[in-house]
Amino acid sequence: MTENLAKTGSSKFHKNTFEKTTEGRRQKVLEVAIDEFAANGYSATSINDIARKAHISIGSMYSYFASKEDLFLTIVNNAYVVMEKILDDVAQESIDVFDCIEKMLYASRKFAVEYPQLNQIYLDITTQALSQMSIRLSNKLELITPRLLCNLIKEAKSEGKISSDVDERVVSFCIDNLYMMYQFSFSSDYYKERMRIYIGEDNMGDIDKVEESILKFIRRALGEN
Amino acid sequence: MTENLAKTGSSKFHKNTFEKTTEGRRQKVLEVAIDEFAANGYSATSINDIARKAHISIGSMYSYFASKEDLFLTIVNNAYVVMEKILDDVAQESIDVFDCIEKMLYASRKFAVEYPQLNQIYLDITTQALSQMSIRLSNKLELITPRLLCNLIKEAKSEGKISSDVDERVVSFCIDNLYMMYQFSFSSDYYKERMRIYIGEDNMGDIDKVEESILKFIRRALGEN
Repeated sequence: MTENLAKTGSSKFHKNTFEKTTEGRRQKVLEVAIDEFAANGYSATSINDIARKAHISIGSMYSYFASKEDLFLTIVNNAYVVMEKILDDVAQESIDVFDCIEKMLYASRKFAVEYPQLNQIYLDITTQALSQMSIRLSNKLELITPRLLCNLIKEAKSEGKISSDVDERVVSFCIDNLYMMYQFSFSSDYYKERMRIYIGEDNMGDIDKVEESILKFIRRALGEN
Repeated sequence: MTENLAKTGSSKFHKNTFEKTTEGRRQKVLEVAIDEFAANGYSATSINDIARKAHISIGSMYSYFASKEDLFLTIVNNAYVVMEKILDDVAQESIDVFDCIEKMLYASRKFAVEYPQLNQIYLDITTQALSQMSIRLSNKLELITPRLLCNLIKEAKSEGKISSDVDERVVSFCIDNLYMMYQFSFSSDYYKERMRIYIGEDNMGDIDKVEESILKFIRRALGEN
């Protein structure tokens, strides 16, 4: 992950100096920043603490990032690049809409379990206090999934694989809402506890069965023919 | 809303002194606190600022609440009481599972539109940084909806109204996930923009049509007979 994070995404929130430092140093800064932002949230995290824990001076830190916000956005942007790659792979490998829906559900859990901290940071971005920040991210990720899902559903409709009267836009929205909440359910303690209450302690051990039920829910909702 | 908030919920996070002050003063403190917590998030909000804006001394503030956390939990707890009342009404008025599902979807939007700030505060609670706080809330709300939905689905199954092979626990989880994301879509700027991207600018004006599509999605997913 940190390897990917040390690369530059399509948007750039760091200064050139950050690219010129050693890879080890870049990774250390990003690792510590991810730890801090995930555990405390953006507002309660201090860029001074991050510098101290990464063993660099605050002067160096500001030579890499103009502000705490830019450091935060660097992490978020690179996390989007990782998520984008996962979604691209799913799209490439999918045979049809149902296969894609299945693979996307697994990918949501995989991403949450592999990168819990990035998902905790993501939860933070969705809050109103950070609304100004999300504007600067230009909704990259928020465009990939809608387009992918919507096109696949449209295609399946025209091929008669699913009911012809589904509204592909609203249905894509619903399906992605199910993915997001499922992903969140492996991210923060709040959502983990909520899922445990819903599906029960006994079912928590058999996640394959849970996913099978979610997929059945979606397939039926699409009016699979 | 503030009337309700000035009443005490079943859990209590304020000191007795708060109940003894005038209702006007209680309302003012809670109103200002809701404004501040919703706009800045819990971490970036200062109890001193709230006291100043509510025109009370910080000494009075601490005679009402032991800490910023307790003031925050007072608001959250009372918001849960309001939401609980809405859900109780829906449960009372519902004829069957499909009617209940419809009424709950409307209630989700209504609650978000009427109390945007409470919903913004709720988003904050779901983040990992506030996980310690959510433990103190004893998951009140998180128990009402699961029980309500799960029982209704079980009943409908036994009456042959919906498919007999749905897993009521996972399906309740999915349905409530759709409600929550829909509710969020009227709460923070991030989620508002996300919904706009999904359903399109043109559909945003016809929310009845959007809700009809969401309900159709759920009814089909249940295998309505």
